[in-house]
Amino acid sequence: MFRETNTRSIVKGISWRVVATTTTIIIVYIFFGRLDLAIAAGLIETVLKVVLYWGHEKIWHKIHWGKKKIEPFNLWFTGLPLSGKSTIADKVYKELEKLHIPIERIDSKDIRELVPNIGYSREDRNRHMLRIAHLIKTLQNNSISTVASFVSPYRESRKAIREMVKNNIVVYLKADIETCKRRDYKGVYEKALRGELENFSGINDVYEEPQHAEIVIDTDTVSADEAASQIVKYVRKHYVK
Amino acid sequence: MFRETNTRSIVKGISWRVVATTTTIIIVYIFFGRLDLAIAAGLIETVLKVVLYWGHEKIWHKIHWGKKKIEPFNLWFTGLPLSGKSTIADKVYKELEKLHIPIERIDSKDIRELVPNIGYSREDRNRHMLRIAHLIKTLQNNSISTVASFVSPYRESRKAIREMVKNNIVVYLKADIETCKRRDYKGVYEKALRGELENFSGINDVYEEPQHAEIVIDTDTVSADEAASQIVKYVRKHYVK
Repeated sequence: MFRETNTRSIVKGISWRVVATTTTIIIVYIFFGRLDLAIAAGLIETVLKVVLYWGHEKIWHKIHWGKKKIEPFNLWFTGLPLSGKSTIADKVYKELEKLHIPIERIDSKDIRELVPNIGYSREDRNRHMLRIAHLIKTLQNNSISTVASFVSPYRESRKAIREMVKNNIVVYLKADIETCKRRDYKGVYEKALRGELENFSGINDVYEEPQHAEIVIDTDTVSADEAASQIVKYVRKHYVK
Repeated sequence: MFRETNTRSIVKGISWRVVATTTTIIIVYIFFGRLDLAIAAGLIETVLKVVLYWGHEKIWHKIHWGKKKIEPFNLWFTGLPLSGKSTIADKVYKELEKLHIPIERIDSKDIRELVPNIGYSREDRNRHMLRIAHLIKTLQNNSISTVASFVSPYRESRKAIREMVKNNIVVYLKADIETCKRRDYKGVYEKALRGELENFSGINDVYEEPQHAEIVIDTDTVSADEAASQIVKYVRKHYVK
């Protein structure tokens, strides 16, 4: 973050006043051919303009019209493993960054890589979700929006998040489990089917479908790019007008 | 967060131009008594000033002098339970807020109240510290500084934090364990001594003293207010010049 020092503000202000006053003096001199009067007019103008500019700023400071509040929001991507959460969330994040709003990307994988043994049991996942909700809430306190992607298979933890964060937009990426298995470039479904992974959502643990998702996308028929543009449109309509 | 709409910027700009041009016309008219020439001079001035102002802004945009970068920092309070971490950290946070830098307060108690069963074993605490480090790092990505207070008794987790966050300032609040016991308004030392609390730092678990703390304060002899002002002075000297 950069901040202007007081010295810079003052020097910049003086620099502009010199340019402005010189221009006025030259114009008046060209019109009337009297340098002494032109300089006098220029100097009086300088004093008046400084005072008037200050007053003008003060008045506008009190006018609230045309100031729009940007409320931080949270895009919450949920869905089966390999349903396309990270891919689509990445695309959406990239588009939203262009709107010059403070925004942060939070992905399940990044955090699980960083923090060992978070666990996949119901209790572990619920605790994990509370921590993520706390992270999002802290960012929102500082006007930062979030694009978060987590399998988040349980209704209770998605509910906890909705209660803790503002402007929560649940994006449910619907995908047939057979499609996800076909997309299995990570080989995780195969492992889960062989019984090598416990609590794998959709195989040996439930995925409880969201019932109040703001956006539902069928990734069997909608492409990642189409999905992203649909989500960005929603955000622009409701939060970044 | 508020943002100015384009319409507001334009209307405000026009409003100022009207004030400025009218002033020029009045001054010129008073000096020379010719209203037609005064208006002509005023209009020419308006066009010129708009162009010049734009150029002036463009040039200043390229001048980096006088822009100071505010680097986010992390004040990390460590010490035995009841050594005064939260009290002093709260005071420091209140003072730093006055400097108008984006800053967030993170306290052990708040998070442990929110997220159940974080645990107190070495493994639990280390995992907890990694999550806090991730939280601080994410805030720092967004230029937000932090004031964090955690017992954080193990060297390894304090080291992990130092590796993950920028501008880490460890504040070690030294306190004789007997002093802490006397301050025991929460009754936690009593409980720990009765064996009702496991892994209680200083009683039935170690507190490994920091060896590289940037600031060490002996809370047996230094008051909370003195401690806070000493820490604020350090931050102002190194990070918010």
